[in-house]
Amino acid sequence: MDKIQQVIADIKPLDEKVLAEARTRQDNLTKPRGSLGQLESLSIQVAGIKGILRPKIVHKVIFTLAGDHGVTEEGVSAYPPEVTPQMIYNFLRGGAGINVLARHVGARVVVADIGVASILQTHPELKDKKVAMGTQNMAKGPAMSREEAHRSIEAGIELVEEELSKGMDILGTGDMGIGNTTPSSAIAAVITGADAAKVTGRGTGLDDEGWKRKVEVIQKTLDLNRPDPKDPIDVLSKVGGFEIGGIAGVILAGARYKIPVVIDGFISGAAALIATSLAPQVKPYLIAAHQSMEQGHRIILEHLGLKPLLNLDLRLGEGTGAALSIFLAEASVKLLGEMATFGEANVSEKI
Amino acid sequence: MDKIQQVIADIKPLDEKVLAEARTRQDNLTKPRGSLGQLESLSIQVAGIKGILRPKIVHKVIFTLAGDHGVTEEGVSAYPPEVTPQMIYNFLRGGAGINVLARHVGARVVVADIGVASILQTHPELKDKKVAMGTQNMAKGPAMSREEAHRSIEAGIELVEEELSKGMDILGTGDMGIGNTTPSSAIAAVITGADAAKVTGRGTGLDDEGWKRKVEVIQKTLDLNRPDPKDPIDVLSKVGGFEIGGIAGVILAGARYKIPVVIDGFISGAAALIATSLAPQVKPYLIAAHQSMEQGHRIILEHLGLKPLLNLDLRLGEGTGAALSIFLAEASVKLLGEMATFGEANVSEKI
Repeated sequence: MDKIQQVIADIKPLDEKVLAEARTRQDNLTKPRGSLGQLESLSIQVAGIKGILRPKIVHKVIFTLAGDHGVTEEGVSAYPPEVTPQMIYNFLRGGAGINVLARHVGARVVVADIGVASILQTHPELKDKKVAMGTQNMAKGPAMSREEAHRSIEAGIELVEEELSKGMDILGTGDMGIGNTTPSSAIAAVITGADAAKVTGRGTGLDDEGWKRKVEVIQKTLDLNRPDPKDPIDVLSKVGGFEIGGIAGVILAGARYKIPVVIDGFISGAAALIATSLAPQVKPYLIAAHQSMEQGHRIILEHLGLKPLLNLDLRLGEGTGAALSIFLAEASVKLLGEMATFGEANVSEKI
Repeated sequence: MDKIQQVIADIKPLDEKVLAEARTRQDNLTKPRGSLGQLESLSIQVAGIKGILRPKIVHKVIFTLAGDHGVTEEGVSAYPPEVTPQMIYNFLRGGAGINVLARHVGARVVVADIGVASILQTHPELKDKKVAMGTQNMAKGPAMSREEAHRSIEAGIELVEEELSKGMDILGTGDMGIGNTTPSSAIAAVITGADAAKVTGRGTGLDDEGWKRKVEVIQKTLDLNRPDPKDPIDVLSKVGGFEIGGIAGVILAGARYKIPVVIDGFISGAAALIATSLAPQVKPYLIAAHQSMEQGHRIILEHLGLKPLLNLDLRLGEGTGAALSIFLAEASVKLLGEMATFGEANVSEKI
């Protein structure tokens, strides 16, 4: 059994007993039942994942995975590909959006090169998991080999495993890769069965003409490569990206190690489609951070059966939405753990 | 000129120059323009309120104001009125939802009795601003006198002024008062012109029959008292509540002292209707924390022209939504202040 299959085999269902106890505790806290809305269900989910009635979230990790995309040759992005390595250096200097938000919520950011199309300067904070120098242009053939697809998922699993010893009570996913909304849309089209135009958005800022070209490129890619919707590795290899495979691996490993997995926006959503196609038992471990502005994200979340926590019109990626939602998850378990019950506080219950 | 009129006269427009500078800075940060969505506009608003391009939010205060409601005699609440003082003691012991969330976001909670219908034990953390022992039953006559309505607003202004010396970079509003969704619905009906049934929800948990009775009570109250929609003090006195008047005062004082005002849910929304009817120039100082589950809140927010930051199906009050949104406001100004610009980070701009 290979690494990926081993991790999947080790994913357990949530703890039903703790889920029930957490529900009972929520109902006895000094507030009208249900009045904390999604924060109640979130706290119960985290308790069930960890198997602890009053869990604590102390160690928070955001995995920001970077890769490049050969399909940028087709003019599908508003930014040039050199922005991928430039932004990695920005992450390592602490100047990007994800750095600011991770500091704000007390999370550490793990930055990894899964397939950037340039040789990056070594840096103590940069994880080198490079599978290849970017994907091939999927409008002309498969984005990567089947073996590379495997390797990208394994790289994500390794990233989580290498961080476990430092503590990880919750994890968030994030991405960086100029052009990566294009493979994400292609994956969404294949796995959800939606039309390419329905799951294709404007990425970092395409105009109308650019958007039409992007839809055409995606349709061409699908017609050419004919990925098999029932074979997620086939989908990833033909129309995916290295950071998307890596994030799928992070998701699988999170579930394997009973860590709540906060999936960021559109790209992470596409990775979650791959991960849940490989292992449907991952779903109860997933928390949808936010509703991205990127068209198609709604379709992905509906397919996953997830309700996003935030709807702030974000479309940056990097794990920014995940960072904010990690804060909400922490809030939810503090409410579950620290609020007084009706009995403790001598507060009268409903008439 | 009385205290309220003086505060209103001292409210200034936001700083147009800083607003423009903050917009320019946002557009130069290392991210696609607009990709941080509502966090961008929020950061610009806070900068404009404070008149500082890169403002800091350090001192955070949530004002949780409590009052009782004579209209509970009509059976409009699922909880008995003694829960109001019981919850105040819960606040003072730190066991309520607002305490947990305030600790989580680093805010202090100011708890005030504006009109609780019982004599509360003195406590160093409890502000005594009691206007009366609860309102009168507004289904039988005015909830309070015009003078008491004035006094409740003044009490809210005083609360803010008394806290200024400890530092206040942002404030959130909150409420506690069994029965207080009923006057809030009545205020919303009068000021927005909506039907009583449209702005009346289930409060802390009414069933269908209870909801119908509540709508009837509100309609009866409006028919009997005939509040003048053009006279907010008349509306507050006839169909309002002391904590609602107090929160209106907190809102006016926040704007007066250039402090961003995060308004919590439905009850705070009703208070914002009173405040903005008294002084429309308050509006740019307001931040809507969340979309409450309480029916009618959407109508209030539309009337105020505000888009809520969160939509977590909250309906607890106390300032819980405000606490979470204070965290988002802090995140937004950190992004504005701490992210690198394209120039600083040597990142290429859009093609």
